[in-house]
Amino acid sequence: MKVARFATDGGEPQFGIVDDEELVVLAGDPLYHGLDTTGQRIALESVRLLAPVIPRSKVICVGMNYAAHAQEMGHEGPDNPLVFLKPNTAVVGPGDPIILPPVHGRIVHEGELAVVIGSVAKRVKPEDWESVVFGYTIANDVSARDVMFADGQWARAKGYDTFCPLGPWIETELDPSNLDIHTSVDGETRRAGNTKDLIYSIPEIIAFCSDVWTLLPGDVICTGTPPGLGGFVDGQRVDITIEGIGTLSNPAKNRDDRTDD
Amino acid sequence: MKVARFATDGGEPQFGIVDDEELVVLAGDPLYHGLDTTGQRIALESVRLLAPVIPRSKVICVGMNYAAHAQEMGHEGPDNPLVFLKPNTAVVGPGDPIILPPVHGRIVHEGELAVVIGSVAKRVKPEDWESVVFGYTIANDVSARDVMFADGQWARAKGYDTFCPLGPWIETELDPSNLDIHTSVDGETRRAGNTKDLIYSIPEIIAFCSDVWTLLPGDVICTGTPPGLGGFVDGQRVDITIEGIGTLSNPAKNRDDRTDD
Repeated sequence: MKVARFATDGGEPQFGIVDDEELVVLAGDPLYHGLDTTGQRIALESVRLLAPVIPRSKVICVGMNYAAHAQEMGHEGPDNPLVFLKPNTAVVGPGDPIILPPVHGRIVHEGELAVVIGSVAKRVKPEDWESVVFGYTIANDVSARDVMFADGQWARAKGYDTFCPLGPWIETELDPSNLDIHTSVDGETRRAGNTKDLIYSIPEIIAFCSDVWTLLPGDVICTGTPPGLGGFVDGQRVDITIEGIGTLSNPAKNRDDRTDD
Repeated sequence: MKVARFATDGGEPQFGIVDDEELVVLAGDPLYHGLDTTGQRIALESVRLLAPVIPRSKVICVGMNYAAHAQEMGHEGPDNPLVFLKPNTAVVGPGDPIILPPVHGRIVHEGELAVVIGSVAKRVKPEDWESVVFGYTIANDVSARDVMFADGQWARAKGYDTFCPLGPWIETELDPSNLDIHTSVDGETRRAGNTKDLIYSIPEIIAFCSDVWTLLPGDVICTGTPPGLGGFVDGQRVDITIEGIGTLSNPAKNRDDRTDD
């Protein structure tokens, strides 16, 4: 089932189940109020899709989680999942512009499978991982590459407003262990991989992360990006497609104080 | 004015203004509902003080922001504020135990002046900094030292549940530019400094952070720790005192799966 968050002209965010070309409207946020519907149906093309979830707490990212990507970044791969945080203020939805701030160096896309947590989760055993998952969406872990190296810490480089597109919706029924991920810029392939090549599997990631942090409903875990080239600039469009979910598409736009020299 | 968040036995969190030995109860969260009071007064000693704010978005920390601390960590001090994030799930209140997880190496306290943001703030000019500040509290940026070095990224080492004690309340009227900060463990001085020695001042920090991230009401910015020794273990008590605010005191307790060998 695909659960979308959407708005109609001037309205408050609502939730709905995608049914072919229509949305079946839900009575409330499915993370808290289940899947009761209002009975209303709306044409999908008449609404604006929003980020399917705004985490109340955190977006966790796992770095260097595909061996081929770790190698191209000069790493052997970490001894444990390498985790970092993006703030919820970085989240935008499908179609929203990625605003490029006036930082030095390349800004890159990192297309990733994102796990949406469905319940309060603390010290989850690997074998219990499925009980805390609400579903899966697509994330773009946008990163200012030179700022990553300059700061050492990645919170700024990966945390700018709009640097966490999520969407287009949450798929609640999916085996995440063997899914093709494909990222393109203006239609040209830039990164490609499959979740079967994750160094740390989703059960391992959930066990590890929930040992550190209490996970809250709506928290998102981005599972890492496969190898490839990542740069994009003002005016280009980044499309990330994951098998069984769909495509997350965002245009890039310079912030008013950025110039591309 | 000192604004506290508190609970009485079994009750929901409430807010109040500290008036000597009493709390004047507020009608709602002062970040959203102003300072209207209910008229009720409660003895301070009869309530449990809670973390004065739970950020809806993020706790931002500025690292290496006292030259003497940067030097003892082997840094010259960064070219720009070095920022990283702690999740809101790490926040606990005064008196709450800091739970020490089973990680290798020392766990250290970092007593810091914390700025509580009062409004939505984006690209704030340094001269406008005061308009977005609600007040000031005390933070303990608890850190698992060896995990910082092992991961490189600090999100895990500084983000474990209970690793962000805040309190005991928010002081809304304070000049933050010249305040003594003093941290002790079981009554013995471990760190001491004064906010006049901040490398990046609070106006500069607010301008920098709000250029990266949209700040939301209740977001907290921890301004850095002065030099000194930081280790503490199960059974010890960490007290952080900041002039004009008060003392944040927390005991330390091993997690059930930690052993101190």
